[in-house]
Amino acid sequence: MADTMQGLKRTDYCAAFSEKDAGREVVVCGWAAKRRDLGALLFIDLRDRSGILQLAFDDTTGRAVLEKAQTVRSEFVLAAKGTIRLRETPNDKLPTGRIEMAVSELRILAKSDTPPFEVAEGGAVKEEMQLRYRYLDLRRPEMQNHLFLRHRIVKAAHDYFDRNGFIEIETPNLIKSTPEGARDYLVPSRLHAGKFYALPQSPQLYKQILMLSGFDRYMQIARCFRDEDLRADRQPEFTQIDLELSFVDEEDIMALNEGYIRHVFKEVLGKDVQTPFQRLPYDEAMARYGSDKPDVRFGMELRDLSETVKGCGFGVFEGALAGGGSVRAVTAEGGADNLSRKDLDKLAAFVKDYGAKGLAWLKLGDTPNASFGKFVSEDTLLAVAAAAGAGPGDAVLIVADTNSTVACTALGALRLHLAERFGLIPKDEFAFLWVTHFPLFEYSEEEGRYMAMHHPFTAPTEESLDKLESDPGTCYARAYDMVLNGVELGGGSIRINDPALQKRMFKALGLSDDVVRQRFGFLTEAFRYGAPPHGGMAYGLDRLVMLMLGCESIKQVIAFPKVQNASELMTGSPDLVEEKQLRELHLSPIREKDI
Amino acid sequence: MADTMQGLKRTDYCAAFSEKDAGREVVVCGWAAKRRDLGALLFIDLRDRSGILQLAFDDTTGRAVLEKAQTVRSEFVLAAKGTIRLRETPNDKLPTGRIEMAVSELRILAKSDTPPFEVAEGGAVKEEMQLRYRYLDLRRPEMQNHLFLRHRIVKAAHDYFDRNGFIEIETPNLIKSTPEGARDYLVPSRLHAGKFYALPQSPQLYKQILMLSGFDRYMQIARCFRDEDLRADRQPEFTQIDLELSFVDEEDIMALNEGYIRHVFKEVLGKDVQTPFQRLPYDEAMARYGSDKPDVRFGMELRDLSETVKGCGFGVFEGALAGGGSVRAVTAEGGADNLSRKDLDKLAAFVKDYGAKGLAWLKLGDTPNASFGKFVSEDTLLAVAAAAGAGPGDAVLIVADTNSTVACTALGALRLHLAERFGLIPKDEFAFLWVTHFPLFEYSEEEGRYMAMHHPFTAPTEESLDKLESDPGTCYARAYDMVLNGVELGGGSIRINDPALQKRMFKALGLSDDVVRQRFGFLTEAFRYGAPPHGGMAYGLDRLVMLMLGCESIKQVIAFPKVQNASELMTGSPDLVEEKQLRELHLSPIREKDI
Repeated sequence: MADTMQGLKRTDYCAAFSEKDAGREVVVCGWAAKRRDLGALLFIDLRDRSGILQLAFDDTTGRAVLEKAQTVRSEFVLAAKGTIRLRETPNDKLPTGRIEMAVSELRILAKSDTPPFEVAEGGAVKEEMQLRYRYLDLRRPEMQNHLFLRHRIVKAAHDYFDRNGFIEIETPNLIKSTPEGARDYLVPSRLHAGKFYALPQSPQLYKQILMLSGFDRYMQIARCFRDEDLRADRQPEFTQIDLELSFVDEEDIMALNEGYIRHVFKEVLGKDVQTPFQRLPYDEAMARYGSDKPDVRFGMELRDLSETVKGCGFGVFEGALAGGGSVRAVTAEGGADNLSRKDLDKLAAFVKDYGAKGLAWLKLGDTPNASFGKFVSEDTLLAVAAAAGAGPGDAVLIVADTNSTVACTALGALRLHLAERFGLIPKDEFAFLWVTHFPLFEYSEEEGRYMAMHHPFTAPTEESLDKLESDPGTCYARAYDMVLNGVELGGGSIRINDPALQKRMFKALGLSDDVVRQRFGFLTEAFRYGAPPHGGMAYGLDRLVMLMLGCESIKQVIAFPKVQNASELMTGSPDLVEEKQLRELHLSPIREKDI
Repeated sequence: MADTMQGLKRTDYCAAFSEKDAGREVVVCGWAAKRRDLGALLFIDLRDRSGILQLAFDDTTGRAVLEKAQTVRSEFVLAAKGTIRLRETPNDKLPTGRIEMAVSELRILAKSDTPPFEVAEGGAVKEEMQLRYRYLDLRRPEMQNHLFLRHRIVKAAHDYFDRNGFIEIETPNLIKSTPEGARDYLVPSRLHAGKFYALPQSPQLYKQILMLSGFDRYMQIARCFRDEDLRADRQPEFTQIDLELSFVDEEDIMALNEGYIRHVFKEVLGKDVQTPFQRLPYDEAMARYGSDKPDVRFGMELRDLSETVKGCGFGVFEGALAGGGSVRAVTAEGGADNLSRKDLDKLAAFVKDYGAKGLAWLKLGDTPNASFGKFVSEDTLLAVAAAAGAGPGDAVLIVADTNSTVACTALGALRLHLAERFGLIPKDEFAFLWVTHFPLFEYSEEEGRYMAMHHPFTAPTEESLDKLESDPGTCYARAYDMVLNGVELGGGSIRINDPALQKRMFKALGLSDDVVRQRFGFLTEAFRYGAPPHGGMAYGLDRLVMLMLGCESIKQVIAFPKVQNASELMTGSPDLVEEKQLRELHLSPIREKDI
């Protein structure tokens, strides 16, 4: 049996002590991070969530205590009583480096096997090992700090929105499946054979219901679930800061959320954020940055060369224009020298991944040199350079496409790629903006119909009201996304509160009356009894935390994340279950042929 | 199309105005609660989440405004601009009853069909209607207040525990099934055919892992899921205030939680709660109140008559004692007159529901009169009365059983029943206590083995350590429940942090090494790398809110509760899903014979 705490009480965390505590008798608890045995001297670095305190054992230490200290190994759990004293040889790298504890009593509260990796070095081991032994990985000061700051960010949300009159209300997690978006996680029902609950992709419908109920300002830190294939910044379950407000317009919602961002950045990072944020209509964001979530920490804006190259003689450009598209460019400063022929070939391959058919280029060396030089006049080359805003030594990279969105998107990706490569992105800046005025619909080739770009409850702009049926492709939404450093932090919209308009919207989406009744019947019924004007916003909390902390992956800011195949490595979930459990749920064991 | 808010901005909530606002021009929004049309005068009670403001239309009102007001019906959504003025005939029942708004501009933001019930009268309609039209039910001021206070209670938890160094950490909701407790809800995996996630019954294992990770103080408002048959105060999904602490003992945890209760009662209800709470060991709670969650707002304690009736001559009593049981009693004051023969028969039937074989009684009228009078001497009757603490006019109600727990439990239920019937329970009191020193195990006839009374991770008391194998029935746990007014508000325990002891515990529970490895392998492995002493607590938030607000059912404090058969009436969940969804999850459609 290990020792117990009996009779000892921790007086403070390890890193709470400084020189002014010298002479105090205190008790600390924690894990042995390191032991150094120098013969007559023995030191143990004791680690708790606050940091490290050096425990010192020397010729003044009782023999039994010293002998016990000699048995201590990495990750043993200790309680130590002793007196704080100044160190003989201070360590300026450590906050507590000028003091140590002269230990008078040592208890080994738990032993540890040799860990599969040293906690201090856990940041360097393979992610798979980190997640398999997550309890060790989470002992790292870095991970402790991530989760501690995540807590502070969430607390700042509770405080800010409470102060602004929001009521936190919990919406159910076992809900009805309404497949109009991502894939639902389903939960079989024991009491209703053949029926299923779904886990919520977001509390969207419930928060709208709460507005119909008159709560006026709703907030929730909401767990959401989407059974989609995972990408680096996605998890099967993730957390939203979820908001909804009544009797407001876009301006109210944006101002309020800018207030939260100002509050949380000041509170958690001590940083001042300037508000109001810049705003970019979607079309402008696409034209200037080739993205609906532009990173505006640097320039390199896209340019439209269409006017410039009209009738220039180069078939690729003219074909794109003739097909209703455009010719767009981004300028790489110094690219005339920096980008080799091989580089340019690689960049051409890169833009093809984004749907572009190719990449034309113009290098402004001593003489202009272009991939399409032999098709056009030198005047055209100079005009292109001017239109692209390129100067001597630069390279202009050009995509022409009959679909302007394709040209913009490919160049937007290229812009980020080049900026990263040439180190043009100031990593410690936070550049916020709102992207507004989104298209209401986007056409899905897969479904063969228009789909809602946000969701089917987003209100069209006033100018779009007449065109829902006649020209859905040119309708805009009263939607807005908050973007930070090229990442969508959150988004929202003003919702439809007129039942007749909602009906037209469902129709425009090609949803039959039957489907609408089956999926959204309760909602359309609810809207018949007085729905106030309302709108809302949802933040991806994991992303917000990741960006605030400067992490590369959301796995670094989630205590127990899942990996690419949606499994959790520490517990081994999902897993087989007992047949009895399946029988009670009226499920047959999975048949071989389904696997 | 309805009117829009354009150009109008709400200046405040309806109930924000008082006489000192007279003369101010303001804008309010809300729902039409009532319209009174008195010919030349027209009034609309406008309701928002703050309360009611009377909108007045009279001969000073513009004709178009008045005509629009005449079209307003119940639950129309309105925005009104006008001037606050004093009422001619004040209504002292209403906080804003001395003022009204003289309306200069009225907008109908949304119309309403005639609602299935008047919002004001929603409290009186059938629960099924309330839940079916929950959005209307939630408009009732009472329900608004419930959810508003629930928010305040949760906010008080965030604040209090944050101030005390707790870190809120989110644990996963898609976890591994570890069936050792209630029935899990399962979630089929699309990417791992034949495997399932489970929804957490509590974050127990993860919060222990977080202690192993050194977070020291963890807190979460955690959604939990149990697929059990519903009772009045249970829901398939419910919310816990979930805590875990390292390097502490029971005293630390209890003091900290008493602090939360003091804080939340003061903050939300303005009530002072006295601490420390009374403590009762489990055995004493059972002996004195026949319950492990006694309602101590009133006396009527049980008495043990075993010594008194030993050798009394009444076979039922003597048989119970000979079988190792006991004879217990509760006294009903005034029962000699108040309890008729028919009443006593009903009470006998009542205790039989709790496993008692019958109910003996002794009425202390002018002469003692007992159901067992002809078997015993009058001295025995008087001795019984004395031992039961009964005086003239009282009735003593007695249960004898070879199993003392059965006798106590039946009388404990009878005690509550009689106290309710005779109005002995002071409804506005809050009587807290801790029940401690629980049995470690309880024997399950169904499973044919000992089961953990709390859970398998609860530490035994020091005196029990030697008896885990030899005498499990007499082992006690380092567990504690917080009880309020006869309801278990929450509970917790000090956990096992010694891997060897945990192994013995699993063995005592009859779990084979294989089962332990399969279910808890990750946990036992984690414990090998230095587990600190730790313990925790979890509150049933829904119950806490219900008791604080004096509600009868947790459905009154949950926005969207489910009913007895685990379905939600508003949305109709659970529901059928598309075959495509099932196919993707490798599930066969439910076969007829399973239904």
